[in-house]
Amino acid sequence: MSLTNASPEQAARAAKISSRTLATLPTSARNAALDAIHDALAAARDEILAANARDLELAKKSAASGELSGSILKRIDLSRKGKFDDMLQGIKDVLELEDPVGRVDLRTELDDGLILQRQTCPIGVLLIIFEARPEVIANIASLAIKSANAAILKGGKESTESFKAISTVISKALASTEVPNDSIQLVTTRDAVDPLLELSQYIDLVIPRGSNELVSYCQKKAHMPVLGHADGLCHIYIHSDASPEMAVNVVVDSKTDYPAACNSVETLLVHEEVLETVLPAVAEALINKGVTLRCDSQSKAAIAKHIKSDLLEDASDKDYNTEFLDLILAIRTIPSSAAVDEAIHHINTHGSHHTDCIITASKQVADHFSNGIDSACKFWNCSTRFCDGMRFGFGTEVGISTNKVHARGPVGLEGLMIHEYRLEGSGQGAAMYGDGGRQYKHKKLSLT
Amino acid sequence: MSLTNASPEQAARAAKISSRTLATLPTSARNAALDAIHDALAAARDEILAANARDLELAKKSAASGELSGSILKRIDLSRKGKFDDMLQGIKDVLELEDPVGRVDLRTELDDGLILQRQTCPIGVLLIIFEARPEVIANIASLAIKSANAAILKGGKESTESFKAISTVISKALASTEVPNDSIQLVTTRDAVDPLLELSQYIDLVIPRGSNELVSYCQKKAHMPVLGHADGLCHIYIHSDASPEMAVNVVVDSKTDYPAACNSVETLLVHEEVLETVLPAVAEALINKGVTLRCDSQSKAAIAKHIKSDLLEDASDKDYNTEFLDLILAIRTIPSSAAVDEAIHHINTHGSHHTDCIITASKQVADHFSNGIDSACKFWNCSTRFCDGMRFGFGTEVGISTNKVHARGPVGLEGLMIHEYRLEGSGQGAAMYGDGGRQYKHKKLSLT
Repeated sequence: MSLTNASPEQAARAAKISSRTLATLPTSARNAALDAIHDALAAARDEILAANARDLELAKKSAASGELSGSILKRIDLSRKGKFDDMLQGIKDVLELEDPVGRVDLRTELDDGLILQRQTCPIGVLLIIFEARPEVIANIASLAIKSANAAILKGGKESTESFKAISTVISKALASTEVPNDSIQLVTTRDAVDPLLELSQYIDLVIPRGSNELVSYCQKKAHMPVLGHADGLCHIYIHSDASPEMAVNVVVDSKTDYPAACNSVETLLVHEEVLETVLPAVAEALINKGVTLRCDSQSKAAIAKHIKSDLLEDASDKDYNTEFLDLILAIRTIPSSAAVDEAIHHINTHGSHHTDCIITASKQVADHFSNGIDSACKFWNCSTRFCDGMRFGFGTEVGISTNKVHARGPVGLEGLMIHEYRLEGSGQGAAMYGDGGRQYKHKKLSLT
Repeated sequence: MSLTNASPEQAARAAKISSRTLATLPTSARNAALDAIHDALAAARDEILAANARDLELAKKSAASGELSGSILKRIDLSRKGKFDDMLQGIKDVLELEDPVGRVDLRTELDDGLILQRQTCPIGVLLIIFEARPEVIANIASLAIKSANAAILKGGKESTESFKAISTVISKALASTEVPNDSIQLVTTRDAVDPLLELSQYIDLVIPRGSNELVSYCQKKAHMPVLGHADGLCHIYIHSDASPEMAVNVVVDSKTDYPAACNSVETLLVHEEVLETVLPAVAEALINKGVTLRCDSQSKAAIAKHIKSDLLEDASDKDYNTEFLDLILAIRTIPSSAAVDEAIHHINTHGSHHTDCIITASKQVADHFSNGIDSACKFWNCSTRFCDGMRFGFGTEVGISTNKVHARGPVGLEGLMIHEYRLEGSGQGAAMYGDGGRQYKHKKLSLT
């Protein structure tokens, strides 16, 4: 890993060149590099925490003058209990993952002695832009090396000292391994981002990890594909046959487990017939957790019959297009005449195609709902918060994608891979086949 | 299918809306639509050929005045022997393909009664831009319907009358099926392309099928992903242990089977040690087929000892960066000191990451070469011309991609699909799991 002072073009070209070496290294060499990074970071704990303390000092001043929010302060602080150890454990966790490189997923005998094979391979060079949390750099470097991708990293300026310290340690650790130093580079200046986003001849994929603004910016500016999602405007639709208890549990968890997360619910759609039966219990549980409810007139009237609360408000149209990321929930009534189809229409029109959920006792209704919505994740009777790479069992999460190509939903290491075809022949030419000539066999072969 | 006079935005929005209906149709409904299209086109043969004759009439005038090449004339002509029947058969072939929608490729028990499933689904709305061959419209409409994607089609202006006639027939045929008419739309004005390329809120993927210029244009202008390749600058490297006979067969086929194709070889790299032993036979066979050889001084001298020919020329630097698409081949000597690594370096620097081949008797050398090159297709001892969806056994070819994400190499129906996650629960919330709570099982389930 190098803390690069090179121009963006030089850095990107160096990354591209080193990516070809990285792509040819065996599993053992990549895992050895992860071990080396782990041990070096463990040994350098004091100097890294000292650098982090300098970031924190500056950040506290900014916070005091109101330039920085308190939540960012918390994110920067690497000395909080367990955080450094979690960072180290994260590297070990990535190390333990199955090697994603060279997995054969198709083998076909085109003809005698003409064997086609498709296998996974790294994408090449990743540009990963993230925000203030200093431990993210170790996580991302690990994911890149594990997946044999070169990576250019740009972290938030609030953690510059921490990033520099960590990258210096990683750089020294890599020097004793087969992983080329240029395959992981840290850029520290904001100015470098725009030129990097244009270097599609060297950089194959951009992964912004952070705010909506950051992702939208990359999506607009990048000349290469961007993996991610700008918005997480998730819905839950409570159907007429929903169990009140299940509705309470799922909605409360989806809204309050971690309101700032992209997979938290933002709009609740409620079938007209259960406004009086299911909704009041849901509303009461939410209000008890401090959630403000912004309701259309019908749902508000139904709730108001049971509960008096300052947290009961009128919704405006804008609320149904807003990702609150806070303890606020928009509620809308779905007329019984249109039922599921109106819920589908609302979600496809107002949603962000991230995660949407139905609560119903009927599999038929759930399937109709899931077929109709255009979402990466379609949930039935469970919290939207389960949309997550770790919870899905991927071992790690590179991000959550709402793209319609390559990777969609929670993305594990698989999302950092593409495939290549290898064809092994014995002198064949295409002109030998066809009219009057040889015929292709196209015989599927076992993968091992 | 509608021949749309709507604005690009109206057309794209209508396509997006209809794509949700299309996505929910069962296999049988999509196949019935393909049958209906097939039968309607067969019944309308005379009126379509009459429209095609009008295109041909105009094209002949343009050809006479030198505005249009003779090869385009040939491509427009749908009345050539077998062409119309091939178009009809193509629809049946697509119909017979396995349904790509709803294939489950991951099932995991996250916990008791919390089952995750990943399954394939259509991408949504495709924008497909193609050139003059009128039969392509039927092929593309079939692929879109089979894969449950809506599509906006824009064909080359030389075949406008043919496209209009075919799309009118398809439109009438679809009216009696469950496939929404707006799911396949034809736009006929060149002006519509630029605005369409910006409508990323409605259009999910652009597939340009045609010249390098067309693909490059789309790659530069499109706000959504583009599937394809601008260049096909393919290489063959003849290693020191190559069999002369195999080298002759593979190189001649790669260059002369269809020189205008993207998978034809453009540069031949020859190990220094076989300049006198293998190269002369290869050169002679190529010259006998009328191929001009543009050589560096070493390879030219070696060939000139055996053959005198006007087709033997000096290469300039530019020749090693040129996709000739013609009976021209650049030849360069690889010094024995660097051997395979120099060939790899040349290919990664000058190539287009499409298809590159090595001729060698050694599996170890072939693997080293294939690991080192950054190409979608890595061939060993066989013609580069095998890089093709039909030859690979995919049943069809949507295009050949040199992208590093989503689809790479020859792309079949699979390239028109993405996946979605479905999670079926029984009231679970994420807060139930973790410290002191329940643990995830992450048990892999069988796919059926």
